[in-house]
Amino acid sequence: MTQTIHIERTTTPKPKPAANELGFGKYFTDHMFILDYEEGKGWHNARIVPYQPISLDPAAKVFHYGQTIFEGLKAYRTENGKISLFRPDMNMKRLNRSNDRMSIPPVDEALGLEALRQLVLIDQDWIPDAPETSLYVRPFVIATEPALGVSPSQQYKFMIILSPVGTYYAEGIKPVSIYVESEYARSVVGGVGHVKTAGNYAAGLKAQEGASALGYSQVLWLDGVHRKYVEEVGSMNVFFRIGDKVITPALTGGLLPGITRDSVIHLLKHWGVEVEERLISIDELVQAQKDGSLKEMFGTGTAAVISPVGSLHWKGEKLMIGDGSTGELSARVYDTITGIQNGRIEDPFSWRVVVE
Amino acid sequence: MTQTIHIERTTTPKPKPAANELGFGKYFTDHMFILDYEEGKGWHNARIVPYQPISLDPAAKVFHYGQTIFEGLKAYRTENGKISLFRPDMNMKRLNRSNDRMSIPPVDEALGLEALRQLVLIDQDWIPDAPETSLYVRPFVIATEPALGVSPSQQYKFMIILSPVGTYYAEGIKPVSIYVESEYARSVVGGVGHVKTAGNYAAGLKAQEGASALGYSQVLWLDGVHRKYVEEVGSMNVFFRIGDKVITPALTGGLLPGITRDSVIHLLKHWGVEVEERLISIDELVQAQKDGSLKEMFGTGTAAVISPVGSLHWKGEKLMIGDGSTGELSARVYDTITGIQNGRIEDPFSWRVVVE
Ligand SMILES: Cc1ncc(COP(=O)(O)O)c(C=O)c1O
Ligand SMILES: Cc1ncc(COP(=O)(O)O)c(C=O)c1O
Repeated sequence: MTQTIHIERTTTPKPKPAANELGFGKYFTDHMFILDYEEGKGWHNARIVPYQPISLDPAAKVFHYGQTIFEGLKAYRTENGKISLFRPDMNMKRLNRSNDRMSIPPVDEALGLEALRQLVLIDQDWIPDAPETSLYVRPFVIATEPALGVSPSQQYKFMIILSPVGTYYAEGIKPVSIYVESEYARSVVGGVGHVKTAGNYAAGLKAQEGASALGYSQVLWLDGVHRKYVEEVGSMNVFFRIGDKVITPALTGGLLPGITRDSVIHLLKHWGVEVEERLISIDELVQAQKDGSLKEMFGTGTAAVISPVGSLHWKGEKLMIGDGSTGELSARVYDTITGIQNGRIEDPFSWRVVVE
Repeated sequence: MTQTIHIERTTTPKPKPAANELGFGKYFTDHMFILDYEEGKGWHNARIVPYQPISLDPAAKVFHYGQTIFEGLKAYRTENGKISLFRPDMNMKRLNRSNDRMSIPPVDEALGLEALRQLVLIDQDWIPDAPETSLYVRPFVIATEPALGVSPSQQYKFMIILSPVGTYYAEGIKPVSIYVESEYARSVVGGVGHVKTAGNYAAGLKAQEGASALGYSQVLWLDGVHRKYVEEVGSMNVFFRIGDKVITPALTGGLLPGITRDSVIHLLKHWGVEVEERLISIDELVQAQKDGSLKEMFGTGTAAVISPVGSLHWKGEKLMIGDGSTGELSARVYDTITGIQNGRIEDPFSWRVVVE
C-alpha cells in the first residue's frame, strides 16, 4: 500500500434514518471513497470526500458497454461496541477476479481494505445497532472513458459507498417461496455468471418481475446449457439438506462463489455435517421432495445472510420444503454466522476483522 | 407525440475535428437530447441542451446492475447536400424491444424519432462529407434511481448523443481476419444476447482482447449451449456465401437482429440470390472451406456496414475465405447499401429518410 488517502470531511452531515425505516440500500452515509485510474498512470488520487453526485461524460463506457464490477459486504456494531467486518479480504480478492474477467486493471487489495477501514471509521456513527441491522459496504468500479469503440476503457473509478441497512427481505428471516425459472437464463459457462458484474443483474430483472407478479420473492436459476442443474437464487447461493447430507451446487462457472457460501461450508464441516459440492438437478430435488428426504433448503448471501426457503414452484406445482417453516440446520447456521458477525459468539475461524 | 422538445443552444461551439482524425466515437457534437423518466410521472422534460457531463448519484442503478440499453444508427450527408437517416424506425422499434427485455418502460417511438431529427438538424454542420464518413447517432437509456436493491429502477434517462465518424476499422474496407472463440461465450438462449444492452459488450471484452493479442481484429461467437453454431462477430451479424447460396445464422435468441442484416437479406432476395436463415455450425463452415464451396464471408453492422472476412482462425488453423480478398457479392452489397445511404443510387425499398 503505497498511496495515502486524502480526506475531506463533510461540513453538512445528514440526519440519520430511524432503524425501522432502513430497508436495503436506500440511505447513504456522509462520505465516500474514490480512486481514479488512467492508462499509463495507473490507480491514483485516493480520497475520501463528502458523499456527492459524480459527473460523467454521456459517452462514458459504463453507460454503453457495462464495463463495471462490484462487491458487497457489511460492517457490524458488535455487542462490546466495536466495529467488525466479515472476511473483507475475500471480497477484495473476488473484486480482482471480477476485474480480471471484465478486462479492468486490478486494484491494490491492501489499499482497498485500508480505504474500507478508514471510510467505515469516519462514518461509524452511521452503523445501526438494532438487531439484524448493519452498515452495507458497496465497493465498485466503473469504466469512465468517453469513447464509443467497443474496447476496454482507459479510465476507471473505484469507489466505496456505505448504506445503513435493515433486513434484506421485508418479511425478515421468515421462509421465502421461490419460483424455479424455466424460460429465462441468467448465465452460461464461458460467460460472466461467476463474477459480480452489473449485466448479470440486469439480465435477471425480467424473470424476477415475473416471479414477483406470481407472489414469489425470488427466482431459482437453472444452468444455461442443460436448463436442468440448479445454480443460485437472485443474490444468493443455495443449500439443500437431503437426508443427513447437505448439498450445494458446485462452482461450475455459471454461479457466483459466495463468501457466505464458503463460510457455511466451513461451518457445516466443522460441525461434522457431510457437505457435497456437486451438480444437482431440479429433477433430483423434486424426487427428494416427493420421497420426503428434502428436509431443508436455504439461500446464503451477504444481504440476507441465511434465507430459509419454504416452498419451490416448479412447472405449476408448489413443492413444500420440510414443513414449510425454518429448518433446524438453517436456524443454527443463521444464528452462528450472525453471532460471529456481531461478536455474540466465538469466532473459531478468525473471520471477524475488528476495525479500529 | 404529445411533448414538445425544449431547446437550449450552446453559446460555445466546439472546433470540429479534421476528416482524417475522426476514428469511431471519439468526438461528440455540440448538443445532446435528454428525456427523464420518473415512476408515476412517465417520460417527461424532453430537451436538447449543450453537450455536457451528466451528474448521477454514485448509487444510480446503472453503475451497479447494468440496467441500460442502446441503439446505433447513422446520419449521412447525401450527394445533393441533403441529410438522410437509414431506417431509423427500425432502431426505435428495436430500442423498445431492448427496453422490454431489460424491464425499462417503453419510449414513445414518434418522440424518439422527432428528437433524433431535431438534434441532427441542430448539429448538422457536424456531419462530415468525406467518403466513408458519417454522423453516428447513439440513443441510449440508463437507470438512474439511487438505490441498491436489485429491482427495476424507478428513474431513467433516455439520451441521444452524436459523433462524427470515419470508418470503424482502422484498416478500412479491407478484409479482416477473425478468431473463432472456443473458450468464452457471449450469450445463451433465454438470456439477453438478442437485445442491445451494455452487459453483452462487457462480457465480450476478454475474448476480444485475446483475439487482438493474436493479431485478429474480431471474434466470431459460437452459441452458448452447443458451442457449435455460429452466431455473430463483435458488433456485426455474419453472412456466408456457400456455392450459390447465402447463409446467415437464424435469429435464435442468442444474437442481435441487425438492421443491416435485415437490409442485406432484402437486397439479396431482390437480386434473386437464395438466402437461408438457419443454424450453421462451425464444422459445416470448415467443411465448406475445405471443399472450396465457401466463397465469401462478410459481417454486417451499422458501424462498418459491410466488413469482408479474409480468414478465420479455428483450432490453430488459419482458414482462408475464397482468395482472401473482398468477394464480388460482398463488394456489390457494400456499394449498394452505402449508395442508398448516401443518396448515390436509387432507394427501391424506401429505406432512406431525408431529414429536413
Ligand atoms: C449472484 C449472487 N450470488 C450469490 C451471492 C452471495 O455471495 P456472498 O455470500 O459473497 O454475498 C451474491 C451476493 O453477493 C450474488 O450477487
Ligand atoms: C452484437 C451486435 N450484433 C450485430 C449488430 C449489427 O446490427 P445493426 O446492423 O443494426 O447495426 C450490432 C450493432 O448494432 C451489434 O452490437
